[in-house]
Amino acid sequence: MLQNIRVVLVNTSHPGNIGGAARAMKNMGLSRLVLVEPRVFPSHEADARASGATDILESAQVVATLEEALAGCTLVFGTSARDRRIPWPLLDPRESGLKVVEEAGQGAQIALVFGREDSGLTNDELQRCHFHVHIPSDPAFSSLNLATAVQVLTYEVRMSWLAAQGQPTKIEKDEVASPRSEELATMDELERFYEHLQQTLVAIDFLDPEKPRHLMARLRRLYGRSSVSRAEMNILRGILTETQKAARGELQKRKDQ
Amino acid sequence: MLQNIRVVLVNTSHPGNIGGAARAMKNMGLSRLVLVEPRVFPSHEADARASGATDILESAQVVATLEEALAGCTLVFGTSARDRRIPWPLLDPRESGLKVVEEAGQGAQIALVFGREDSGLTNDELQRCHFHVHIPSDPAFSSLNLATAVQVLTYEVRMSWLAAQGQPTKIEKDEVASPRSEELATMDELERFYEHLQQTLVAIDFLDPEKPRHLMARLRRLYGRSSVSRAEMNILRGILTETQKAARGELQKRKDQ
Repeated sequence: MLQNIRVVLVNTSHPGNIGGAARAMKNMGLSRLVLVEPRVFPSHEADARASGATDILESAQVVATLEEALAGCTLVFGTSARDRRIPWPLLDPRESGLKVVEEAGQGAQIALVFGREDSGLTNDELQRCHFHVHIPSDPAFSSLNLATAVQVLTYEVRMSWLAAQGQPTKIEKDEVASPRSEELATMDELERFYEHLQQTLVAIDFLDPEKPRHLMARLRRLYGRSSVSRAEMNILRGILTETQKAARGELQKRKDQ
Repeated sequence: MLQNIRVVLVNTSHPGNIGGAARAMKNMGLSRLVLVEPRVFPSHEADARASGATDILESAQVVATLEEALAGCTLVFGTSARDRRIPWPLLDPRESGLKVVEEAGQGAQIALVFGREDSGLTNDELQRCHFHVHIPSDPAFSSLNLATAVQVLTYEVRMSWLAAQGQPTKIEKDEVASPRSEELATMDELERFYEHLQQTLVAIDFLDPEKPRHLMARLRRLYGRSSVSRAEMNILRGILTETQKAARGELQKRKDQ
C-alpha cells in the first residue's frame, strides 16, 4: 500500500535537501521519489545527506513538469506555508496521514508535493492539488526545512499506516520489553510488602509504632501509583530483609567476627 | 508553558544538525537548547542550517555533562532507537507530546534528550530518563537524522499544545483534577537519592559494589516512573539515613547502652 505513495519535490535548490528527504522517506517505509527540475541532481551532497537511502536517490524519477510528476495520480496533497487567496480544502499533517492511508488502501495513487525552499508551491501548482496540507508552525517563524517537512508528513503517513495494519506505533514486533510485560504484584502481595516495610521502619527507629498512620499512608501512595511488578517487589522485600538484619546488629557482628 | 521545555543534544558530531535542530525548535515555538559537549560549536555550518533561528543558537547553553543539562528538570524524555535489556516506560512521539504538554502545563520542567548521530544515548544516559521515546521508523532503516528526529518530537509537542490551547476548559479541568499538588523532586535531587540508595544497599550487603548496574537500573526505573515529590524524597532519604546507621551497628549499640 505504501508503494502507492510518491513524494514529489518541485525545483529543489539544495541537493542536500533531496538527500535528507530520501532518508526521511526510507525511515518511514516509503520509496518512490519524483524530482521536478531539481537545480542539482545527482549530487554528492544528496548522497551524503541520504545516509544510506541512496537506493531511493538512484531510483528517483527526474521530470520537467509537475504534470509529469503527477501522471497516474488520483489524489494529490500539496504543502502550503500559509493560506492563499483561494479557499481550498486544508488539512493538518495528521488528517493528511489518515486520508493518505485510507485512500491508498483503496488503490488510489497518491502524491505528496513539496515546493521550493524559499517560496513553496505557486498558486498554479497548488490548484493542481486536491488538498492543501499546512504544518502548524509558529506564525512568527513558519518555514520548515524541506527535508524536515517531508519527515513530518511521512511520519504521519507511517503512524496512520501502522494503526491501519493493527501494528503498535511504539513497540516493534521483535521487541519484548514493555513496562507492563512483567507481571504486576497482586494486591495482597502489596499488602504484605507494606507490613514488611512498616516492621522494618520500626526496627530502624524511623517510624513510631504508636502512630504509623501518616507516614505509611504517604508510602502507600508512592508505591501504589507505581504499578510495582512482582520482580520489583521481590527486590524491595530483599532490601527490607537485609535492613532488618542490619537493625538487629547482625551485619556488625558478622564483620566483627 | 513551552518555555518549560528544553531540547538537550548529547555529543553532537555534526554542527549542521545543531543548526537544523534549532530551526525545527523555533518552527514549533520552542526556544531553549542545551548542548552537552558538542564536537564543534559555535559553527558557521550550524548558523547556515539554522536559517534564521540563530537566536536559539546564541542563547544555547553548552555544558559538560548530561547531569548539568538536566539540572532543575522534573521530567525527562530520552529518544531511543530500540529496546534495551531492561524494560522501560516507552512512548511513541504522539504520547510524548501529550504528556509533555500536560506536565509542562502543571509547571514541570521538561527535557527532550537526543543522543549521538551514530550511537544514540548510552544505557546509562537512558536510565536517567523517565520515559523513552521511539519514533516508529521502518525496522529495516530505522535511524533518523538528528534534526528530523527533533522535528518529529517538537511537532507532536506543538500539535498537543495547540489542541490544549483550543480547549481551555479541558486544561483547567485537568489541572483541578490532578492529584499533583506537591512539588516534584528535580533530576539532581533524584540523582542524589540514587547515590544515597546505592551506598545504603552496599552498606547492608544487598548490592555488590563491583556490579551495581542491573539492580540500580531496575530501582531507577521503579522510582523514575513514579514522579516522586520532594516531600516523598525526603522521607525516602530519611529511611536511607536510618538504614545506614543500622548497618553501622549504631542502633544495636544504642539499645545495648
